[in-house]
Amino acid sequence: VSVHSDGVTLAPPPAIVLVRPQLGENIGKAARAMLNFGLTELRLVAPRDGWPNPSAGPAASGADSVLAGAKLFETVAEATADCAHVFATTVRKRGVIKPVVTPEAAAHAIRAEPGRAAILFGPERSGLETDDVAVARTIITVPINPDFGSLNLAQAVILVAYEWSKGESLASPPATEHDPPAPQVELDRLIAHLDAILEKAGYFFPPDRAHVDRRALRTILTSPGWNAGEVRTLRGVLRSIERSQG
Amino acid sequence: VSVHSDGVTLAPPPAIVLVRPQLGENIGKAARAMLNFGLTELRLVAPRDGWPNPSAGPAASGADSVLAGAKLFETVAEATADCAHVFATTVRKRGVIKPVVTPEAAAHAIRAEPGRAAILFGPERSGLETDDVAVARTIITVPINPDFGSLNLAQAVILVAYEWSKGESLASPPATEHDPPAPQVELDRLIAHLDAILEKAGYFFPPDRAHVDRRALRTILTSPGWNAGEVRTLRGVLRSIERSQG
Repeated sequence: VSVHSDGVTLAPPPAIVLVRPQLGENIGKAARAMLNFGLTELRLVAPRDGWPNPSAGPAASGADSVLAGAKLFETVAEATADCAHVFATTVRKRGVIKPVVTPEAAAHAIRAEPGRAAILFGPERSGLETDDVAVARTIITVPINPDFGSLNLAQAVILVAYEWSKGESLASPPATEHDPPAPQVELDRLIAHLDAILEKAGYFFPPDRAHVDRRALRTILTSPGWNAGEVRTLRGVLRSIERSQG
Repeated sequence: VSVHSDGVTLAPPPAIVLVRPQLGENIGKAARAMLNFGLTELRLVAPRDGWPNPSAGPAASGADSVLAGAKLFETVAEATADCAHVFATTVRKRGVIKPVVTPEAAAHAIRAEPGRAAILFGPERSGLETDDVAVARTIITVPINPDFGSLNLAQAVILVAYEWSKGESLASPPATEHDPPAPQVELDRLIAHLDAILEKAGYFFPPDRAHVDRRALRTILTSPGWNAGEVRTLRGVLRSIERSQG
């Protein structure tokens, strides 16, 4: 958490999470885009060609420190476990019902709310899967020419990083007094707990719809942004229900 | 000159002027960056490898109309002869004394003033020469990490085009996909349903704290603002749990 000279504590810079990136070259370009605007925390989820990747370094044009510090994860859930706010960048309409904001509005939200934010970017060709988007509370969409939308990965990263960097030298908004959302890992445990109860109750029927049902529940439980105390209370509710199941 | 529905006459979109660009590939990438944000007028001053350039098309990723319409000039003066406002993008300090603005401020200025604007971008390696900058009235500098400034040509173009596009209708914030919260009566029924399940599970203990517990749960369930469909889904969850209670 950085403290500015005016004494106001700000949220830490967001983590950039590349989900299943294909080319090492694009990972390098994304690192370069980040560092231009002061972002240094890169997380990689299951990069197609493994990690480290020899193509990344040359494409980073000197942003080697970002690549050296990149952390590797197997799933989006693990990559965002410590984050209070998860954003998913996507240009396409999704079946998922979530708020959609511009990079500018996302940058403001990231600065205004305490707790670390993660911003998800999908694979070069296909973008984020619906299941990846389901992990996020908010969608970031770059408003783009409706007749020609062709942003590549590094360009999407640079626009988001650029918007975030604008607030760096500006006076920050007053710190909000509410608690930040619980870390993603606690929310995941809550969802898993409910899942076990519903499994026992026979909720997921027919079985071939279970995946859709689970996604819908995840979306419903992700949107509130409950804080750690609220999540604890709900875990108590679930424990109580669990004991009463026949 | 485009006229918006509110009757305000705006300046035409700015021309992007690439001064002595080196690689055809970068001309293509710049065209792609432009069209993403609705800019179509590309002017080329003395491209190193001549024009047209067979490397430009593949890099444009479909922005062929921009390349096809590109105009070729021998000097910056000729390329900007019809423009009322000339901006020069540069990251370096120059001996020339001119106002320096951000891409955001430049975008506002371009919209606020009648007459066409041109924005100059220098060659990939060296940037604009002092003589090129001298043609401009205003310098655009992207505020960048002082320890790592490494924007390539297409990235500089995309940031400027992106800022300009914010004033266009295409750049209006995307509609959120959010349904309004369910009517309060449906939320109340959800809370009452959970309450009955928790009563049966023995959750409210000791009884003299039940009031506090209920208030806490109401707060937790009220804050999300779930829509009617989400509340229906949660009612289904509760029915399923209810049937499984011993």
